[in-house]
Parts: sequence; structure tokens; C-alpha cells
Amino acid sequence: MADALSLNPLPAPKLGEPYLLTPGPLTTAYSVKEAMLRDWGSWDADFRGMTAALTQKLLAIAGDVAGEYACVPMQGSGSFSVEAMLGTFVPRDGKVLVLANGAYGLRAAETLRYLGRAYTLIDKGDYMPPRGTEVAAALVTDPAITHVIAIHCETSSGILNPIGEIAEAVRSAGRKLFIDSMSAFGAVDLDVTRIPYEAMVSSANKCIEGVPGFGFVIARKSALEAAKGNCHSLSLDLHAQWAYMQKSGQWRFTPPTHVVAAFLEALRLHEVEGGVAGRGKRYTRNRDVMVAGMRDLGFETLLDDLWLSPIIVTFFCPADPAFSFTRFYELMKERGFIIYPGKLTVVDSFRVGCIGRMDEHVMRRVVQAAASALTEMGVASGTPPAAALEERAKLAPSNAH
Amino acid sequence: MADALSLNPLPAPKLGEPYLLTPGPLTTAYSVKEAMLRDWGSWDADFRGMTAALTQKLLAIAGDVAGEYACVPMQGSGSFSVEAMLGTFVPRDGKVLVLANGAYGLRAAETLRYLGRAYTLIDKGDYMPPRGTEVAAALVTDPAITHVIAIHCETSSGILNPIGEIAEAVRSAGRKLFIDSMSAFGAVDLDVTRIPYEAMVSSANKCIEGVPGFGFVIARKSALEAAKGNCHSLSLDLHAQWAYMQKSGQWRFTPPTHVVAAFLEALRLHEVEGGVAGRGKRYTRNRDVMVAGMRDLGFETLLDDLWLSPIIVTFFCPADPAFSFTRFYELMKERGFIIYPGKLTVVDSFRVGCIGRMDEHVMRRVVQAAASALTEMGVASGTPPAAALEERAKLAPSNAH
Repeated sequence: MADALSLNPLPAPKLGEPYLLTPGPLTTAYSVKEAMLRDWGSWDADFRGMTAALTQKLLAIAGDVAGEYACVPMQGSGSFSVEAMLGTFVPRDGKVLVLANGAYGLRAAETLRYLGRAYTLIDKGDYMPPRGTEVAAALVTDPAITHVIAIHCETSSGILNPIGEIAEAVRSAGRKLFIDSMSAFGAVDLDVTRIPYEAMVSSANKCIEGVPGFGFVIARKSALEAAKGNCHSLSLDLHAQWAYMQKSGQWRFTPPTHVVAAFLEALRLHEVEGGVAGRGKRYTRNRDVMVAGMRDLGFETLLDDLWLSPIIVTFFCPADPAFSFTRFYELMKERGFIIYPGKLTVVDSFRVGCIGRMDEHVMRRVVQAAASALTEMGVASGTPPAAALEERAKLAPSNAH
Repeated sequence: MADALSLNPLPAPKLGEPYLLTPGPLTTAYSVKEAMLRDWGSWDADFRGMTAALTQKLLAIAGDVAGEYACVPMQGSGSFSVEAMLGTFVPRDGKVLVLANGAYGLRAAETLRYLGRAYTLIDKGDYMPPRGTEVAAALVTDPAITHVIAIHCETSSGILNPIGEIAEAVRSAGRKLFIDSMSAFGAVDLDVTRIPYEAMVSSANKCIEGVPGFGFVIARKSALEAAKGNCHSLSLDLHAQWAYMQKSGQWRFTPPTHVVAAFLEALRLHEVEGGVAGRGKRYTRNRDVMVAGMRDLGFETLLDDLWLSPIIVTFFCPADPAFSFTRFYELMKERGFIIYPGKLTVVDSFRVGCIGRMDEHVMRRVVQAAASALTEMGVASGTPPAAALEERAKLAPSNAH
């Protein structure tokens, strides 16, 4: 499929709108948006059928061949689903090991603080990956830990964390694993038969390429059954949402009907492209073409190739004082591309996303736009400041997979 | 405007889709849905401008001439915003008087139970209105009560509760008022200069005629300032959402960008129609035409005219054994109208909504469809069962405004 795509460029967005090179909301297919051109009654059988199709297709993508898992959609942004997962499944006397290397790991910890659930944090800073050995050691040290939460792709830096070795460490220690696969599910392998988890969370507007408005949790049915009465929130109670949906086929409270319709079209396109493998192949090609082009312009990536995700890539801002991110952002926008600010705490950076309805043809134009923007700013080269290279040097070979 | 509308029927929905005679999601203008045909970056200045316009226009509709209030949108369904309001503003040691006469009042109580906040309930059953005198008496009896929550239009029955006398009773007793005006705001007067409240909640997919995906709270700035650190939930923390929005112009977590774009078009249409007065006039005419026609067919309303809202109307199911709601629903759907099941606990009933992008011409066709459905079912008349009439008799004249 990726080869076919590279021969036949995806159609450009309509209305001259810019491509969104961000971690979501992202550029979606026109047919996904067209699916929102009608109204549905949320109580009606037609819409109940749409909800059932949505959960079945997501479970198929997750690889739940044994029927041990359930999919529970949840209104709101992805962070609402993360909070729903933690609030529903962590017992009041449980304790969570949070693996953080960026904003989303820290947000999971902040969520637990709000919920009054005990947690302990392994904070690897801006981008260093949490390793299986560290997780294993932490679980030996603290027997009170009942659950571990890991971020699959931490979009703060764009790192693809080593979820396989983390899952193995958690399994070996007899604890339960939560995965925040918000920005990776649907394009990066997370087959539950190979990487078992208690619950996993993602959202509509990431690699499935829907529009924003709901997230979803894929969880063991046994976990859902055990969670009755545990949640801190009526709205975010996954057990209650699941039980009501089983009984009535409906969402407990008004669903974002148009967003659900768009998501079903997005799921159809995902299947046509060859599922997770096809989607992942296109994004990987997007990244490779874009990163190679940007490096040719003198930009340096924060991460070694080994850790680069096919989701989003962090680049250092060039050392040249003529470079300003605000100006670069505006020049890229004028050229039809919305890029994303960086989230590193130590050095200046920016991010370019690889996900959404675009292919390598678009990524070549991104690189051309960046070249043209640098010229207009009078920036000679993309060379990063010395501090940035020092940061990068921290990714020593010993940290490899 | 209502006169102009009655001369020039609103265009029918496209694609032969049915009208939604429900309390939301509802039938929206085609231009509202067309506004979703592009993607926005939520970090970009264009979208930040859209968010600012949304909050300013809602404050204008609320009548906040003094600038004492702020509008905080919140992802999720309307119930998420109700929970956000209660969780953010009720102090951990506060106590809430819940005025219930249907599902939404009881849901507010259930929400407080989840939050672990103290509350006391005046439960008037399926549809009897809570009165100002009862509220005043309850507030004298229990000095621990800090807040009162009232449902403006309780769509379980369709009753328009006497919010003016309730607000006066709360104000006189020096307590604070929350209003759940989910299904009324934008079409029924709730000017904050006449009916002062601590906070009010509504959602995108009700009388403003947007599509579902977020709600909003209009609250005193002083209440928001005092609420820092009080909320039980990271996602639903209105103080944090407000503070972040003030600082950055952005929603804290991914907003439903397309739903927001649709809402701005809905707000434009609301203004063109003459704001709250114009919208209310059309809905009132919708109700009057529909109720008169249904009564001609022999259907009886649950409520006296005095209590009928222009939002949704409950009818008793006819006594004739040939009548079945499931069959009636399907026959109405075949004729292009989605109606809504009843929510009364004692007798069988159904509901017909008056809100959404439709006018009296549509409501006449609704009545024709109901007549035709009754004929096809072989139902002689819409006469309700004796039990239903006994229920209705409970609305004694002494309960009048």
C-alpha cells in the first residue's frame, strides 16, 4: 500500500488549508469530514450499530483474538480516557509506578495526585527511555506497587519507548500494566497477544486519523468486572460506561455523534491501507523522507535513529541568531504547513509530525518549505547550539534496545 | 424572525435523513455541519481566535454586561460539564441542596455521591415542580447547605421549572445557586442580571443548535478564582481550564476542533434569528402547533399548559391495546421523524422535541405522520389510560407560578 501511495499522492486538503504536522488534531481525509454531514439520534438503532462497529473494529486492531478484552469509548480528549483508566482500575489502596520521560508521563502522575492514589515516579527527564531493567528493579524494591503505567510514544520528544521490555518486566514481577498509546495505536505494533496489558488507552484523532472528540480504553473484561464502584468520577467511570453499553448499546451520556461517524470512515480507510502494518509503513516513510531532508538542511534530531518514532520528530533550533521559532512557524504556515513547538526544558527545539493524511510527496514539500523559510530568515545553516549537542550526547549506546 | 420563518420554511435535512425530535443531539443546519469540512491545529492562532469568539458570544447571550462572569468550555457531554461545575465549586466541606423532578436532578445527586460531597435532596418525583417556598424552608431548616442546584428545563418530563422563584429563595437565604440549563439556555430567558447564579451549565448540542462534543460553564470569576485546587478530577477542573485558557488562549487538552467550528456557525445563526428571543419564539410556535395537532388526534400531555416547556413535550401512550411505542417509533421513523421514549416511572409515555433546525411547517408534518401511524396501527384514538390521567391530576392549581 505504501508503494501505491508513493506513486499516487494523497489528495491535498481542500480550501487551501494547511497540513497539520502536529501530534493531533491532524490532517484527515476529506471523506472522514464528509461523514459528519448528517445528524444522528444517539438513542436510535442506526447509531447503536455504529457504536458496536466501532468497538469491534478497535478490538480487532488490538489483536484480541481470544475475546478477553472489551473496548470502552469515552467522551472528551485522550487525557480524559487516561484519567478514566486510572480512576476506574487503580484500587483506592493500589499504588502505581509511573514511567515518565516527558509531559505525558508527568501528566499521568498529576492525574494520580488528583485522584488521591499512591504512586511512585521514575522520571527520566526530557527524553531518556525508561528501561526494562529499571522497571524490574523498582518492582523488586517496592512490593506495594500494584500497577505500572508506560507511555508508548512520548510525543514530548517523539521517542518510541521500549514497551516490549517494559511489559516483560511488569509481567515477570506479577504486576499489571497500563499503556498510554495515545499517539501510536493503529500505526505501531501493540498486539495484545505479544504485549499483554491490563488496559490501554488511545484516541480518535491520532493514528486512526479521525477527528477529535473521544478516546477509548481497551481493557481486560476481568478488570472491568472488578472495577465496579471504584471510580472517582461519574462521567469517567469506565465500568459504568461499559455496563450501560452492554445493556443498551448506547453511550451513557450524549456521544459526539458526528465525531463517531467520522471515526468509522477513518477505520475503513485504515483497513483499506492495510491496517497497522500499512499505516505504520506510510508514517515510517514520511519520517524517513522528512528527517533525511531536514538533516540535509543542517537540522539535527534530538534522538538517535534507534529511538525515533514514526509519529513525530524533535529537531534542535539552529544556533544562528537569525533563527526564531515564531518566525519559522509563520513562514512554514504561509507555505501551507503547521508545525509544532518543542517541549524540551533545557534547549530550544521544535517538532514535525509524520501522522495524518499525508505521504512522502507532502514530506518533500515540507523540507522545501523549511529550506525556503531558512533562506528568507537569512539563516545560513541548521547547526544546533553546543548545549543541544551535549543533550543529545546523553543518549549513550548503552541505552540501546 | 419567527414570522419570516413561518412564511419561508427552513430547508429540510439533506440525504433524506430523519428529523430528530429529541432533546439533543438534534437536527442542525447544513451550514453548521459544513463548517466541519476542514481541520484546525489546536495550538494555532486561528483556532485560539475561534475559542475566544466562542466564550465572548456565550457571555453576551448570558447577559453578562458587568463582566463579572467567565465562560469555560469543557470537553465531553453536558453531564461532564455538570460534574466539572460541582467538583470545581463545591468546597470539600460544602453541602448541596439538590432540587430533583426527573433524571437530571437525580443525576446531579449521583454526581455528588461520586465526589463524596454532602448533599440533601428534595425529590418531587417524575414531574412535580420544586417551588420557591419549599427551597426557602429547606434552607432555613439546614444551615449547613452552602449551594443549591436546580434544573432549568427537566427534559425527563419536559417541565420548565420555576427558576425565578427558586433563584430568589436562594438569594434571600444568602446561599449560592447552580443552574443546569442544559436544554434551555439560548431559547429560554436566563439573563444573569435578572436571575443571578454562581454558575450555569449548558452544552453545544441543545438550543444553540451545534453538534455534540463539548459543554460550557458560565461562572462568577470570583468563584473560579476561589476554586483553585478544589476539583476531584484533572480533566474536569474548571479552574485549571480557565487559568490555562487565560494564559495561552488554548484548551488544556485537545479540543474537539470540528465541533467548535460547527458551534461558531451555530452561534452566527442564533444571532441572525434574533438571539434568545427569536429562538424562543420559533420553539414556542413549534410546540404550540405540535401540541394542538397531537391533542386533536386524542393525545394528552403529561403537563398543564402552564408547565410545558418549548423544549420537549411528554405525551401519554394511548390506552388502546393496539398501541405499542416500539411500533409507533418505527412508523414515525419511516415517515422521517425520530421521536424519543418517555422517562416516567409510573405510566407509559413518549416525548416529542421542539428544538433544532425545524419550524412549524415541520411540526405540522409531525402531526400528520402521527395520525398516519395511528391509522396503520389500528389505534382508534390517543386517549390515555386512567392511571395516566390520575398522574396528571396531581398537578393541582395551587402549584401554579
